Amino acid sequence: MRELEERIRRDGIVENGDVLKVDSFLNHQMDVELFAAMGREWARLFAGEGVNKILTIEASGIGIACIAAQQFGVPVVFAKKSRTKNIAGDVYRVQVPSFTHGGMSDVIVSKRFLGPGDRLLLIDDFLANGAALEGLLDLAEQAGAAVAGAGIAVEKAFQPGGARIRARGVRVESLARIKSMGSGHIEFC
Amino acid sequence: MRELEERIRRDGIVENGDVLKVDSFLNHQMDVELFAAMGREWARLFAGEGVNKILTIEASGIGIACIAAQQFGVPVVFAKKSRTKNIAGDVYRVQVPSFTHGGMSDVIVSKRFLGPGDRLLLIDDFLANGAALEGLLDLAEQAGAAVAGAGIAVEKAFQPGGARIRARGVRVESLARIKSMGSGHIEFC
Repeated sequence: MRELEERIRRDGIVENGDVLKVDSFLNHQMDVELFAAMGREWARLFAGEGVNKILTIEASGIGIACIAAQQFGVPVVFAKKSRTKNIAGDVYRVQVPSFTHGGMSDVIVSKRFLGPGDRLLLIDDFLANGAALEGLLDLAEQAGAAVAGAGIAVEKAFQPGGARIRARGVRVESLARIKSMGSGHIEFC
Repeated sequence: MRELEERIRRDGIVENGDVLKVDSFLNHQMDVELFAAMGREWARLFAGEGVNKILTIEASGIGIACIAAQQFGVPVVFAKKSRTKNIAGDVYRVQVPSFTHGGMSDVIVSKRFLGPGDRLLLIDDFLANGAALEGLLDLAEQAGAAVAGAGIAVEKAFQPGGARIRARGVRVESLARIKSMGSGHIEFC
């Protein structure tokens, strides 16, 4: 999506060669008008796919998912990192390595909100090594839910996650795919 | 707001006398059409207040804040729990007790995204003892930002947070204020 690529070129910051900071518009400060444009693009790409629910993972996927959900007219469920006392025992659970915090996080979804009748669109801000998205796919599989595909804002196409997940037959629609980057340069696929 | 009160009556579950579960529409599964109605109500209440940014706290405030922000035409900043390696050193920082996880969380906002030129609307899903909202007020004060007020989805008015924060002169607009509750009964103010 040209609008997202241009924004990344303008406001993204490459650090240490492989960290792309987009925190001024995507995952700390959030430009909700840009999110609406992204939501419209996924709605176009997944039109007719029968999506009835969006599944994302906290925290930075939530805003994008909620605004995209308005385009689909469906609710959002967000997978929670670690168990909270407000969630009853009946949960689907998967372990996901945390890129930002290190270590592993327990990620859960209440069984009340995912099931065999669902056809999901998975949404997340980043796809790099694919761990978070594979966690969401695992949760969907546990629930017996169908997956229409995944909508990703920024894919680091030089990391292996996207290829591995597409090889499983999952449709992945990334709105900006970065082929290579370094200090002062970002090249899109 | 009648629509939110009716939804709480219909789908909210009171557990252990003082825990209100609204996870089927507010903070795990999320009804984005309801969020849009809430956003319109806050936009009406805070019209003319010069809000230029919404500040919330991860994770369950983010979806509500993003959809409300569309009504104001402003960006959202969400305060992050614990430091991540994607955030540079220059952050405002406050400690907030965690109701759901126990213990204290370090909550941070990058200094790049809050400053003296900002006039903030604070958004969160719940107000009970007030700790999270006081954390956001503290972050705003550190930044020298003005606060137009706080938009809360559900206030437990029988707990002390709302009264204490209003006594500081902060305008708090809660869309559903619960006077009392118990198993099978919820009374609004």
